[in-house]
Amino acid sequence: RINGDRLWDSLMEMAKIGPGIAGGNNRQTLTDEDAEGRALFQKWCEDAGCSMGVDEIGNMFARREGTDPDALPVYVGSHLDTQPTGGKYDGVLGVLGGLEIIRSLNDLGIKTKHPIVVTNWTNEEGTRFAPAMLASGVFAGKHTLDWAFDREDAQGKKFGDELERIGWKGDEKVGDRKMHAFFELHIEQGPILEAEGKDIGVVTHGQGLRWIECTVTGKESHTGSTPMHMRKNAGRGLALVTELVHEIAMKNQPNAVGAIGHIDVYPNSRNIIPGKVVFTVDMRTHLIDKLNGMVDEFMQRAPKLCEDIGVTFDCHIVGQFDPPAFDEGCVTAIREAAERLGYSHMDIVSGAGHDACWINDVAPTAMVMCPCVDGLSHNEAEEISKEWATAGTDVLFHAVVETAEI
Amino acid sequence: RINGDRLWDSLMEMAKIGPGIAGGNNRQTLTDEDAEGRALFQKWCEDAGCSMGVDEIGNMFARREGTDPDALPVYVGSHLDTQPTGGKYDGVLGVLGGLEIIRSLNDLGIKTKHPIVVTNWTNEEGTRFAPAMLASGVFAGKHTLDWAFDREDAQGKKFGDELERIGWKGDEKVGDRKMHAFFELHIEQGPILEAEGKDIGVVTHGQGLRWIECTVTGKESHTGSTPMHMRKNAGRGLALVTELVHEIAMKNQPNAVGAIGHIDVYPNSRNIIPGKVVFTVDMRTHLIDKLNGMVDEFMQRAPKLCEDIGVTFDCHIVGQFDPPAFDEGCVTAIREAAERLGYSHMDIVSGAGHDACWINDVAPTAMVMCPCVDGLSHNEAEEISKEWATAGTDVLFHAVVETAEI
Ligand SMILES: NC(=O)NCCC(=O)O
Ligand SMILES: NC(=O)NCCC(=O)O
Repeated sequence: RINGDRLWDSLMEMAKIGPGIAGGNNRQTLTDEDAEGRALFQKWCEDAGCSMGVDEIGNMFARREGTDPDALPVYVGSHLDTQPTGGKYDGVLGVLGGLEIIRSLNDLGIKTKHPIVVTNWTNEEGTRFAPAMLASGVFAGKHTLDWAFDREDAQGKKFGDELERIGWKGDEKVGDRKMHAFFELHIEQGPILEAEGKDIGVVTHGQGLRWIECTVTGKESHTGSTPMHMRKNAGRGLALVTELVHEIAMKNQPNAVGAIGHIDVYPNSRNIIPGKVVFTVDMRTHLIDKLNGMVDEFMQRAPKLCEDIGVTFDCHIVGQFDPPAFDEGCVTAIREAAERLGYSHMDIVSGAGHDACWINDVAPTAMVMCPCVDGLSHNEAEEISKEWATAGTDVLFHAVVETAEI
Repeated sequence: RINGDRLWDSLMEMAKIGPGIAGGNNRQTLTDEDAEGRALFQKWCEDAGCSMGVDEIGNMFARREGTDPDALPVYVGSHLDTQPTGGKYDGVLGVLGGLEIIRSLNDLGIKTKHPIVVTNWTNEEGTRFAPAMLASGVFAGKHTLDWAFDREDAQGKKFGDELERIGWKGDEKVGDRKMHAFFELHIEQGPILEAEGKDIGVVTHGQGLRWIECTVTGKESHTGSTPMHMRKNAGRGLALVTELVHEIAMKNQPNAVGAIGHIDVYPNSRNIIPGKVVFTVDMRTHLIDKLNGMVDEFMQRAPKLCEDIGVTFDCHIVGQFDPPAFDEGCVTAIREAAERLGYSHMDIVSGAGHDACWINDVAPTAMVMCPCVDGLSHNEAEEISKEWATAGTDVLFHAVVETAEI
């Protein structure tokens, strides 16, 4: 068993870097706070006897040697960057849970055949530099390094420049490492485990995702002086498409979701009929055919709905990944560890995207999830109990050590 | 007949003050540009032989004496302030049209029995300091001066402080003046006159207005990891209420309008289900019972629609005026002037609120409207022709002089 108190202390210590305004964290990727968090993590890893490697996109790899010089390492990790108003556990638990495995192995004097490498993936959140899971995506060959370096934040600063500025651009070519397996522990960010009263989610699949940026164009004009039959109200286009997204998600139950989260209205004035609304549809499910079917239906019906009320509809995909099915061997290792340790568990589909979803394409991968209070995440009020953190890390520990072989 | 070229030159000269970025104007109320525009107007009025009075809220009154010392003045005017991205004619035409009447009377050597006073009402637009038609509202006793002075802009600057800062707080008590009549010329800001091919709109009524600020509250959570049956999507509340507003307006045809122009979504992130949406409904019609009926139906049905999808609905009125019916004598003076001058005309209801709507409560009042291209207003691309401006001012001239008696 791992040391839950030590893990919790480290979580609280890391949370002091880039504190938020309401108990959470603002440690966005490639900020000074990110650099400070990285330095602390490096110090802890070196204190635990690991050597640190850093690749050209700033991914960090803390290695504990194995007994077999020819054996590929087992990787474990997640991300230390947070949302602007993020929680203390989203990502951080997975990195510090990996570190706790190393510390526990040291305590117990256990040597594994395969090396174990704890990873901090750069820019999982994607809020400062879209898209999310950027550096694990480059690692898995989904994006080029140049493309990633060209991403800009809201101030027009480039990802590549900011990475150099904080001093965390390494020498290693991104994606050169070969993995025996990859494990990621993450909070669920949803309400299912808590509602079902389970300590552990055994993640069998992830959802595929499509982000569809839509523009409805009408004609801005005075709300008072434009007769109803002469107006082109882009806000009504938004309304009809909002309900369409809901309808499509509902008729693809179970295990499909859809909503519009980001909406910009132009000119956004009380007495002006919206002339343009730009918004992003987020649709997900864990079956690729179903996902494509949902998107097809959306693309067919949305323009028609808008046309019928005299406004035009355009859209394009601004983010996508296909549903990953995690490696059966790795998933089984997690399920058996939970069983052996006596934690209540259930199979679960990850609703959110994670670094593990990309790494799954280049290595046998699986994820452990632990509950979070009210399913709340991407919010400073994000909370988990020490018991949940301990249970998740215990299961991670057993699955990793089993795979790394003693 | 008035001098259309001179009127047009003055419009173009005024438009040089506070130019916009796309051919229009940004001469918002109580800015340095507003002060500059006021000074130019004052100079023009004094050049035309008028004396200038200013009241405590900055309303300007340029007076041309009449022949009867006991006769109350006929007032004519509108506003010189603009939207942040406004046009060159909204309001300005009505003020400079009034000035052109004085200049034409001077040219023709005509003396009127009643004095004529050209007015520039402070802060008609209400964008910088809500509500719209603020100073004419204080003049008509709808708001107190103290309340007006306490209005704040987005930077937290107070109306009263800004009025002093630009040096246009006068001595006269607001609303002390008694009027024989008030006339306002304004561009239509809607598409009806152009569509009907008419030069002149004889405004018989204005619409009453209710601005209802609504808050739909759900629960913000991760779009990917919150199952459909566990989510409370405030964006769906917005969608259903958008369509409800449209439905209510449609079933109260003809002559009723409704839409939602201003929408703020929280937290407005691509992968977070909206936890809260704040928006303002704008509903109008020219019959008070119909207007109250529309609002009642809205207040009854909107909470129910939201409740049915698991979100809550709250609202309160943030702006309102009842439908004005303009003075029959003044309206007739306008209609007969248009007829006499040979301009095509039609009776029309003002869709927008105007200073005349408040002044109508304290003096016999009416409005002349002229078309604007595509009905476009509150937009830098707002356009009218010199012919339309001339026709509207000709009709205003005849109605005012008829009322002021030669
Ligand atoms: N874990 C997480 O929120 N990742 C961002 C991508 C997504 O929306 O799923
Ligand atoms: N003319 C004008 O746009 N006034 C502002 C108030 C309104 O929305 O009608």
